[in-house]
Amino acid sequence: MSGPFSFRLLATDGAARSGEMATAHGRVRTPAFMPVGTQGAIKGVHHDDVRAAGADILLGNTYHLMLRPSAERVAALGGLHSFMRWPYPILTDSGGFQVMSLSRLRKVEEAGVTFRSHIDGAAAALSPERAVEIQILLGSDIAMQLDECVRLPAERGEIERAMRLSLRWAERCKRAFAAAPADRALFGIVQGGDDPDLREASARALVDIGFHGYAIGGLAVGEEPQVMRDIVAATAPALPADRPRYLMGVGTPADLLAGIARGIDMFDCVLPTRNGRHGLAFTRFGPINIKNAHHADDPRPLDAESNCPAAREFSRAYLHHLFKAGEALGGTLLSIVNLYYYQDLMAGARAAIAAGRFADYAAQTEAAWSQKRDVATQ
Amino acid sequence: MSGPFSFRLLATDGAARSGEMATAHGRVRTPAFMPVGTQGAIKGVHHDDVRAAGADILLGNTYHLMLRPSAERVAALGGLHSFMRWPYPILTDSGGFQVMSLSRLRKVEEAGVTFRSHIDGAAAALSPERAVEIQILLGSDIAMQLDECVRLPAERGEIERAMRLSLRWAERCKRAFAAAPADRALFGIVQGGDDPDLREASARALVDIGFHGYAIGGLAVGEEPQVMRDIVAATAPALPADRPRYLMGVGTPADLLAGIARGIDMFDCVLPTRNGRHGLAFTRFGPINIKNAHHADDPRPLDAESNCPAAREFSRAYLHHLFKAGEALGGTLLSIVNLYYYQDLMAGARAAIAAGRFADYAAQTEAAWSQKRDVATQ
Repeated sequence: MSGPFSFRLLATDGAARSGEMATAHGRVRTPAFMPVGTQGAIKGVHHDDVRAAGADILLGNTYHLMLRPSAERVAALGGLHSFMRWPYPILTDSGGFQVMSLSRLRKVEEAGVTFRSHIDGAAAALSPERAVEIQILLGSDIAMQLDECVRLPAERGEIERAMRLSLRWAERCKRAFAAAPADRALFGIVQGGDDPDLREASARALVDIGFHGYAIGGLAVGEEPQVMRDIVAATAPALPADRPRYLMGVGTPADLLAGIARGIDMFDCVLPTRNGRHGLAFTRFGPINIKNAHHADDPRPLDAESNCPAAREFSRAYLHHLFKAGEALGGTLLSIVNLYYYQDLMAGARAAIAAGRFADYAAQTEAAWSQKRDVATQ
Repeated sequence: MSGPFSFRLLATDGAARSGEMATAHGRVRTPAFMPVGTQGAIKGVHHDDVRAAGADILLGNTYHLMLRPSAERVAALGGLHSFMRWPYPILTDSGGFQVMSLSRLRKVEEAGVTFRSHIDGAAAALSPERAVEIQILLGSDIAMQLDECVRLPAERGEIERAMRLSLRWAERCKRAFAAAPADRALFGIVQGGDDPDLREASARALVDIGFHGYAIGGLAVGEEPQVMRDIVAATAPALPADRPRYLMGVGTPADLLAGIARGIDMFDCVLPTRNGRHGLAFTRFGPINIKNAHHADDPRPLDAESNCPAAREFSRAYLHHLFKAGEALGGTLLSIVNLYYYQDLMAGARAAIAAGRFADYAAQTEAAWSQKRDVATQ
C-alpha cells in the first residue's frame, strides 16, 4: 500500500461526488468525515472505537504537536502513525488556524508567523517551509499548506491581503514539499473570506500552482451558515473535478449534507466529541440533550437500530445518570455515539450518490431530525 | 443460572484458598478482585473493558446510588444489572462506610444513621432495614449488612461500642433480608478495629447469627499495613471455612497477596482506577509513574507480554504524552492496564493455590516488582 497518493471519482449526482483516495496507509472513502485528534488522541475516545465507528482517516494538529511533544520527538518515535498507534491515513493541518485562535502575541510577516505558545508562553515560529517540514516529520499522508486565516466579519482589504499572502505561502510550501517522500500529498487552501470573487481568484491561482487536493479554509469562523454555503457553492466549481475538495473545520450534520450537495469530499470537526462531552447526542431523530430531566426514567436506548453499540445498549436513563453524576464515561459514550452518527451519515451519502438519489437522502435525513423523538411517548 | 447462592472451595494451600461462588448472574472465581463501580460506572472505563480484563463481579455503592439516581428509580428501570448493562454478578456495600467518610452532620443512633447528602445537603437516613431494602431494590447478588465503621486509631471503648452496635444491626439486617428473593446472598461484617479480641468476638457472634459470607470491615482506614495483616490473620480462623471471606476496601497488590495468604477470598478497591487516572501503572515490574520525564522518549510498551492490549500496544512515550497533554484517554488507558494487572494477579494466585505453590508465587511476584524496569536500559 505504498503507491503514490491518488483520488478517483466513483460517482457523481448533481454537484455531489463520491470517490476514493489511496494513500500509503490505506484508502479513504469520500465523502469522508475526519475525527480530530488534536494532540495525537481523539478526546476521551479509544482509537479502536474511532476506527470501529467507520473512520478511514484522522486529522492531527501541527500547532499542538509541534509544541508538545514536538515534531522531532514524534519522528524519532517512528512518526505520528506509530506514535499514536493509528496505522491508517492521517491528515495534518498546517497550524495556521490554531496560531490565529489559540496563541498569544502572534505576528504575521511575509516570512511567516511568530507567536507565543498557549501552553507555556515560549516563543515559537512557523514559516511555510517549517510547516511543511513538521508535517513531513510527523509522517502525515496529507499535509496542508500554511495559510493565514481571517476571522469574519472583516474588511475586504484585510481579507484580500491575507488571501494573497496565503497564495505566496502556497508556492513556498509546494517548493518545500519536494523534500517529502513520493507517497505523500499536499493540499492548497482557498482563502478569500466571504467574498466570492476573492474566493474564485484564490482557487484559480492555487490550481495554477498545482496541488494533490484543495481545501476551503477560513469558514466556520463566525459567519452565518448561509454565507458558508454560498461561498462553498461559488468556490467548488473553480476547483478541478479530479482532485479532492476539503471544507475545513465543518461542521454540523446539516453543514455536511449542504457541503456534499455543493461538491465537497472531506470534512473535519470537533463537534461530535465536544458536543458528546457536553451531553449532546446526534441521532437519526435529531440532537438529544441527554442532560434534560425527562430522560431520567426513560428506558429506551438512543437508537435501537444504530450501528453504534453504545447507542443501542445503554438506556437514556443510564446515560442521563452518568452526566448528572459527573462520570466521564458519559462523555466518552456520547462521543462514540456521535462519531458513529457522523460516519453513518457519510456512508449513507456515499451510497445515495452512487444510487443517484443524494437529494432525496439529504431531504429524508433532515426531515427525520425533526421527528422530536427526544421525549418519550408512551 | 438462577439457583441459590453457593460457595465451594476448590483448593487450599496453607491458609490460602481458591474457590467459586455461584450467583443468579453467574460464577465468581476466588480469590476475586471486584472493581468499584461507585455510581453505577467504573470511573473512566467502559464496562466491556472491565469484563475483558477478567472481572467476574463488580461492586456498587448503596450510599451513592440511594442519593442518585435513587434505589426506587433503579428498580423501576429493571435493577442495577439492567440499568448499568452489566449482566454479571454485583455486590453492593451497605452505605455505612460512605456515610462515615463522605456525608456531613451524621448522627449514629440505635435505630440507624441520619446524615446530610454530600451532593446537595439534603437530609437522608439509613437503618439496617432500609439498607437491606435498598440493596434488594438494586437487585445485587450479594448484599452487605449495615455497620458502623470507626476510623483508626480510636479508643477501645469506642471500637467496642461500634462493634456491638454493628452486631445488633447485623441481626436486624438478617431479619429484613427474609424479604429478598431466594437467590440473593447477605454478608455480615466483622468489626473490632485493631483489637484481635474484639475482632474474634465479632466474628463468632456473626457466625452465630449466620450469613452467606463474612467480610472484614473497618480496615484500610488509617492503620499501619502490618496491623491490617495481623488483624486479618487473627480474624480469618474464626470464620467458617465453607463461606467466602471478603476484606473490604483493600488494597495494593501487596495487600492482596498478603490477604490471600491469610485466607481471604474477595477484595475491592478503587486503587487500579484512581491511580491509573493519576498516571500510576501497576505492572509485573512494579509500579510505573508514567508522568516521569524519562518516559518521554521511551518507545517500549508498559509490558510487551501483558494480557492487556493497552499495556502491549501503546508506547510509554505516547502514554506519557497523553498525561502531559491532559488527554483523558491517558487515565482511561492506565486504568484499564491496572484492572488487567489486578485480575491477572488474582488469576495467577488461583492457579498457584491449585498447584500448591502460592507462597512461591507471592514471593516471585513481589521480587519481580523490584526489578526497576521503570527506566529504559538500552
